[in-house]
Amino acid sequence: MSIIESLQWRYATKKFDPKKILAQEKLDILKQAFNLTATSFGLQTISMLIIKNDTLRNELLGAAYNQSQIVDASHLLVLCVKNTIKEDDVDDLFDNVSHLRQTPETILEPFRNNLKSIMQNKSLEEQQEWSINQAYIALGNLMTVCAVERIDSCPMEGFDRAQFDAILKLNERHLKSILLLPVGYRAEDDMFSSFKKVRKELKHSIVEM
Amino acid sequence: MSIIESLQWRYATKKFDPKKILAQEKLDILKQAFNLTATSFGLQTISMLIIKNDTLRNELLGAAYNQSQIVDASHLLVLCVKNTIKEDDVDDLFDNVSHLRQTPETILEPFRNNLKSIMQNKSLEEQQEWSINQAYIALGNLMTVCAVERIDSCPMEGFDRAQFDAILKLNERHLKSILLLPVGYRAEDDMFSSFKKVRKELKHSIVEM
Repeated sequence: MSIIESLQWRYATKKFDPKKILAQEKLDILKQAFNLTATSFGLQTISMLIIKNDTLRNELLGAAYNQSQIVDASHLLVLCVKNTIKEDDVDDLFDNVSHLRQTPETILEPFRNNLKSIMQNKSLEEQQEWSINQAYIALGNLMTVCAVERIDSCPMEGFDRAQFDAILKLNERHLKSILLLPVGYRAEDDMFSSFKKVRKELKHSIVEM
Repeated sequence: MSIIESLQWRYATKKFDPKKILAQEKLDILKQAFNLTATSFGLQTISMLIIKNDTLRNELLGAAYNQSQIVDASHLLVLCVKNTIKEDDVDDLFDNVSHLRQTPETILEPFRNNLKSIMQNKSLEEQQEWSINQAYIALGNLMTVCAVERIDSCPMEGFDRAQFDAILKLNERHLKSILLLPVGYRAEDDMFSSFKKVRKELKHSIVEM
């Protein structure tokens, strides 16, 4: 199927079939796809939680305004950002470049120092905003990858981030929750799956120059 | 090729071949894919410019810090947001839902009013920030679609948005430029295309619970 047919196939799944579980092979694709997401400077200040545990998901349900996808989906993906960006994060990246590409440190050093200074010049809030943008790129990538793999998903911005962070003890991991993406398979009786997709006409969203 | 192989194939193209131009069929896929991007509430407060005009791109070059992809790529995509969200935008969406799905207004009305009130309660800055998040989702989607279609691309956050807005007269269209994505085909001698992809090990970006 073409990529456009895949994008037309996807929709924000309102009702998942709780009995249909993603195969390990599909989960591995989602992990790889998340990790391969392009991020600014390649710094990867985002992380993904994959939550299967039902007890935990029941605890999270109220903090997501009782949206049933939280517990009914096969897995709940939580996209997170690092709560701060440190010199060590920049060093980890460049050490990795040096290791994987055998690039000499004399070439890397100015880039390493430049990126440290860019990050140091951002306030904590600016660092987080910058990382949040990267989390949205990952969301866009993952929804498309899901569509290609015929995995249903439902993107969610609306949930209580502070409550999620507390329940998932994210502070201990230096993370903050930003976006949710329950993934799995649509219930046969999810009436939204048969609704016509609503989009603007191309002439109202695209300008050619 | 698998979706993971496609994501591994893509890289931030540093040097495009200015002689290789995207076929109309490929451009049509990018238009459809942008328009099919999931946006919050389906409100689509984002637009995409597709710039082919060389004179215009030469004018933009300086405002993008002379990054050669601006002029060398086959086309320059500019992802934009509406500079304000009005009642009319919400009405356009629900009129479209009503038209495409034949949903009765009695059912739509509470949702229509609720979304108007959500948007009215946001400051201009909050409206724009909200739309900017959607532009990042579109960027994530488009990069993946490009990879699947073997179109090279290079995401860019670093450019002078105000200068772009002025050169492209975006205020007349009630738009603001947010992100750039030159698209086309890599030059044979872009040394970055042969570099090993640098990513964290999965255990450092993913947590299973």
